[in-house]
Formats: sequence, C-alpha cells, structure tokens
Amino acid sequence: MHYPDSFSQITQVMKSSLIRELVASTKNIPDLISFAGGFPSPATFPVQQLAELFNEVVKNEGSDVLQYGASEGDILLKEQLMKWEAYELKPEEMVITVGATNAIYYYARCLINPGDVILCEAPSFLGTLVTFDALEADCQSIPMDDEGIIMDALDLKVKTLRQQKKNIKFLYIIPDFHNPAGISYSLNRRKEIIRFCIDNSIPILEDNPYSRLRFYGEPLPTFYRVARTDFAPTNIVTEIVSFSKILGPGLRIAYAKGDKELIEKMVSWQQKVTITPDCVAERVVARFLEKGLMDAHLKNICEYYRPYLQKMLDELEKHMPSSVHWTKPEGGIFLWLTLPEHINADELFIEASQHKVSFIPGSKFYPEGQEKFNTLRLNFTYSTFEQIEKGVRSLAELLNAKLK
Amino acid sequence: MHYPDSFSQITQVMKSSLIRELVASTKNIPDLISFAGGFPSPATFPVQQLAELFNEVVKNEGSDVLQYGASEGDILLKEQLMKWEAYELKPEEMVITVGATNAIYYYARCLINPGDVILCEAPSFLGTLVTFDALEADCQSIPMDDEGIIMDALDLKVKTLRQQKKNIKFLYIIPDFHNPAGISYSLNRRKEIIRFCIDNSIPILEDNPYSRLRFYGEPLPTFYRVARTDFAPTNIVTEIVSFSKILGPGLRIAYAKGDKELIEKMVSWQQKVTITPDCVAERVVARFLEKGLMDAHLKNICEYYRPYLQKMLDELEKHMPSSVHWTKPEGGIFLWLTLPEHINADELFIEASQHKVSFIPGSKFYPEGQEKFNTLRLNFTYSTFEQIEKGVRSLAELLNAKLK
Repeated sequence: MHYPDSFSQITQVMKSSLIRELVASTKNIPDLISFAGGFPSPATFPVQQLAELFNEVVKNEGSDVLQYGASEGDILLKEQLMKWEAYELKPEEMVITVGATNAIYYYARCLINPGDVILCEAPSFLGTLVTFDALEADCQSIPMDDEGIIMDALDLKVKTLRQQKKNIKFLYIIPDFHNPAGISYSLNRRKEIIRFCIDNSIPILEDNPYSRLRFYGEPLPTFYRVARTDFAPTNIVTEIVSFSKILGPGLRIAYAKGDKELIEKMVSWQQKVTITPDCVAERVVARFLEKGLMDAHLKNICEYYRPYLQKMLDELEKHMPSSVHWTKPEGGIFLWLTLPEHINADELFIEASQHKVSFIPGSKFYPEGQEKFNTLRLNFTYSTFEQIEKGVRSLAELLNAKLK
Repeated sequence: MHYPDSFSQITQVMKSSLIRELVASTKNIPDLISFAGGFPSPATFPVQQLAELFNEVVKNEGSDVLQYGASEGDILLKEQLMKWEAYELKPEEMVITVGATNAIYYYARCLINPGDVILCEAPSFLGTLVTFDALEADCQSIPMDDEGIIMDALDLKVKTLRQQKKNIKFLYIIPDFHNPAGISYSLNRRKEIIRFCIDNSIPILEDNPYSRLRFYGEPLPTFYRVARTDFAPTNIVTEIVSFSKILGPGLRIAYAKGDKELIEKMVSWQQKVTITPDCVAERVVARFLEKGLMDAHLKNICEYYRPYLQKMLDELEKHMPSSVHWTKPEGGIFLWLTLPEHINADELFIEASQHKVSFIPGSKFYPEGQEKFNTLRLNFTYSTFEQIEKGVRSLAELLNAKLK
C-alpha cells in the first residue's frame, strides 16, 4: 500500500504547526537560549501536592476513576469548577476536554462547514489556526491595537465578507495576555465587541488560558462574564479555560462553558473522538480545587513569574534600539516585539539561531497570505535570569548591527 | 443566538451512540440486572499498583510528565510497548492516543472523504460505527460465520461496490472475542483476508482491545503479526491496542501501529485535536510495563473473569429454549445470542427492562438499513454470579413464554 494516495483531501493538504518545526530546527544547537516555546516553567508545577492527590484519588476512588467516565466530563469536577468560577452555571452548560485545543476543535467542528469564515485576531495563536485550517475554515484576520481588535476594522471586515456572501461562523478571541501579542482587551473594548457581535449575530469563542496569570494590576471580567452581567441574557460567548498554564499541560484538562445546545453537540463530538477525557486527571483537578489549593497556588505562580517578566522588560529597555517596540503585559507568558518595517523576523530567526538565541517569528501567527514579517514573540517563563540577560543582549546586538 | 441554525451539516445529522441512550433509559430502574454495558469489572483494576505508580511518577518525573508531551506519544512508553510486543518496530510506526476510539478517529480521518466506503463486519462495534458516520463514511457490512467475515461475501461486496464506482477505503475488523459477536477469527481466515486485501489494495484496520483477555485455549497471532510474518513486507494492517480492558478505561491510553507515513498523518491530526494524550497516564503505563507487572496482572484478570463467563454459559445452557443459540468464546467480555427469526430483540429489550434485566439489542450493531433484529449482546464482566443467575433466568422465562 502506498498510503498517501488514499489520504483524504484535507489530510493531503493540511499544515503542521510550524512552531514545532521551528523548535525542532534548533533542537541540536548546544547552549541555545530559547524564547520560542510556550511552555510553563516546571518550577510552577505543584508536584508534591499533585503526587499525593494522584495517589489518594486512585487508592480511594480507583473503581470509579479507572472506569469509563461521562463524555461530558466528571460531574465532581464540574461541581468544583462551578464553585471556583462562582457563576450561576448549570452542569449541562459545561464540557470538560483533553486540553483547550480539544475544546476549540469540538466548537469549530460543531459550526464549520468547509469554506465558512472564522474571524480571528491579527496576530493569533498558531496552534488554533492550524486546527481551523484542518477543518477547511477560511480564517480572516483583523488588526489589533493595545486594547484588542480594532472596531472599525471588524465592522469593515464583516460588511465586506457579507457583501461577498461569505458565511461568518464565529469570532475567535484571546482576551488576556494575548498569545502572541501580549495585550489584554480593555473593558470598554470587550463591551463594544460583545455589542457588535450580538447586533451581527456572530458567536464569540473566548480562549482563556492566561487570565489567572496576572502579576500586576486588577483582573478584568472575561467576555463570558461581561456578556452575562452587562448583556444578559445572551449565550453569544463560549469561554474555554485551560489548566495547562496554571497546573500543568501534561494533565490535559480544560473546559468550555456556553450555550446548552452547543455544549451538547460538543459532547457528542467528544463521544466520537475520545469518548471521555482522562478520568483520573479530571478527579485530581477536582480534589485540588475542593481542597482549596488553587488560590495559594496561583499566588505562588504569579510571584514566581513576575521577576522573569520584569527581567525581560528591563533587558529589552537596556539593550534594544529605539526603533524596536514591545508590549508591556501585566501577566501571561509572552512579549510581542515590533521591529522597523524593513526587518524580516523570519530571516532574523536564522541569524539568531547561529547566535544561539531563538524566538518565534511573528509571521507564523497570521493566516496564510495575511502575514506581517516585522514582528516576533518572546517567551519569558522557560529561561533563567542569566539566559534572559544573555539572550536579549544577543538579539539586541543583531538588531543594532542591522539598523546601523 | 439560536445555535442549531449555525451547526455544520454533519453536526446537524450525526447520531449519538444508542448504547448510551439505552443504558440511560434503564438507569432509574431499581435492582436492574444489566448485561448491557461494555465495562470491565472494577475488581480487575490494579488499584494499589497504579496508586503507587501515579505517586512515584509525578513525584520523581513531575517536571517532565506535567509538561507538554510529544504529539506522537511518550517515547518512554513507546520503548516499553516495543519490548512488550516483541516486534521489530520503529517508534515512528507507532502513535499513542486518548483511547482506541481516538486512534480509530484519526485513522479514518486520514483516509475518508465524505461518501467513501468502509467495509465492516455485520455486526460491528456501535461506538466505531457512529464515529465513521460522523466522518460521513458509507459503512457497508459483511456477514460473519464462526471464523470471521465470510470470504465469498467479502469478495462479492467488493466487486459490487467497485462496479458502482465506490471508493473503498479500508476494512474494519475486530480480530478476537469480537464486540458484539463474541467470535475470534481463525488463523486460516486471517490469512485469507490479508491475502484478499493485498490483492485488492484494501487496508485493514484491526481494532484489538480484547486479545489479551483469553481465559482458555491458545492465543492467535493478530492480523498485524500475520501480515508481517507470513506476507512480509506489507504495511496493509494498522493495529490498535487499548489498555481500557486490561488496565482501566479511565486512563484513556491506546496505541496504533502501522505504516510510517500513515502514522505521521495520524500524529498531525492528534496535534490539531488534543495536542498530546495525557502525559502522566502515558508514563504510568510505561512504568507498569517496565516493572514487569503486566504479565501477572493479565493472568489475574483472566482467572477472575473465567468463572463469570462459565457461569453465564452454564445458566444459558440450563434455562434457554433450544431454538436460542449463543457464541462460546474463550475470552473477552461479551456473548452474542441468536434468537428465532421472528423474535425482535428491540421489543424484547423493553419487556426485559420491565422484568429488571437489560442487554443491548443486536440491531444497534449494524449500519443503518442493514440491521438484524433477532440478536442480542450480553456482557458477563460487570455482574455478580447471583445477578447472572437471576438475569439469565428472567430472560429465558421471557423467551420461553414467547416461544410457547
């Protein structure tokens, strides 16, 4: 058998996540300083607590958690999540999934026919873009300013697409400490977008892995919460919350909250794709929340990360040419750099690798044909202070040489 | 938003697993004896060993297993699986997934365009049929005898479909202790099918959750092994092995072995759908194998289940009317009953529920429009001896009354 001849059409043409390829391309460089990945620091994993909880849960509840679980997710975890969120939420408005990408896949699978439009931010998270691409969606990106998607651009894009008889299925948004752009939506912009989407019947998919990683300033209500409090009753927002950045990505636990009928269909997809998420991990997260460990843990993570963000901001300030600009986020795990228009970060990536420093070129975060090339993403949670110092200096030296 | 208006076409029409609905329909009947589900007995879960392993793995390898893992699966688990299987297998010929259904989904997703044909057994596993259905495949079923799919019927079906210009993408087979039919393929039939499929360029998807649950007799080589030993070199078979029935379904760990290019595409789908399986569970299974715990554990499970199978066979023999026939498997978790032609097991299901006994009507295990109604599936691994005794007697009384 020569399998490629039998591959389905989409399997033949779909893309891989270029991030993995980029990271792989620098894998064998010794002493490489990498700001490329989106990995949390292992120092933030509550290893001891989780080790004990895994032991307890399997020992005491083994006949339950080692058995098949519900396709909609563990009801005990749902109960804890409802308490944690402090919403008036019903269990049937929630589905637990194998990480956030899994929830995004089911959401999009529920709504997208080939050729349907997904509105997304420019830039947006590459991992999600390749998932949308594999569902044959037409991703249309909209530029952002420091407060989020620009309203006029959104309005124009929707008008243009509708004139072209395109079927706009939803708007994909990352509300806080945006990956890769580092910005957070202002409260006002959140309201404007929800108002616009209600008026134009465009559902919002809110992908929220980072909002609890706030090191400074006051938390903002999520789109989901704003929609429920200021625009109630509306089911326009579906929010996805992940435990990957606040407990550990290896657990593969996230959940989606939204309209009951939509959630029911997401569950129906889950039944066909994985049957159920990992039941042991679900229960461990439930017990972690039930024992009230989350608040102190989140405080620890934020205190741990804060100096790394500060260090990177300080080093950029110290070394970067004045024509380079960057976001100053109050949390999350990424910074976004904007270089002078004529500098191509794809080329810079190759040169930087030779100088033993790595990042993700910004062009990778746009739908195909809609790229911007003078941007790049830096992660600050997976390096030591020394690596941040040395890596940012190397990058600045390269840029200074180019801009001389 | 009224979401159903926006659902994608397939989401609007796809079916749910009727088993869940049937099981749900009898949920509130007190003292119901259920032979309906496909659950392993919790008594077979190695709770103590797994509790310790989870603790050890998270404590000692937390910074690794709580981090993002590889989309193709944990390399340490792959190494253990290769030793366990004792194949000459390369890691890139293997992908680890969130249970077997997940591997089946990726395999079919790689090959199926809407309308493509999947050949399957009549009867076949309902959970898989709804997954194929959600991919808009055209499932065509082929009758079986005690040794597996009937060769003449397979030949005729393939000829007919090809005359109709249908695109046959693969043959889906459950080799041992078939769900629901209880049969195992004879060695000769395995060879005949592989020969036929090579000659006709039809890949084989071998779904193998049960072969290690053998209580009597000698194990048979899987299709995958036969293909590699007797027909080498051929990449025609992809085998999926699950830990759900031999360790615990809650762990959600299975793996697929097959052609390198096909596996690579399955990994690419996994990257888009879940990113990676649960990394903690993967490592726990790896350590379970590495410590050599599996052999003794499998021996324990088989010794545990054997008397339950025997009990059900004995009770059927004692009470059933002579016009009822059933499979006598040497392992697995199901029996398959064939009733006289005029008895409809869908109707019997409702009457039986009123008599506090439950099963799955056989009609649920055929593609739509290809049903047989005088069959039913009994599970023997989730009831006590007393329940088996009482439940089979109730069922026999009902049938005796009907056949008077």
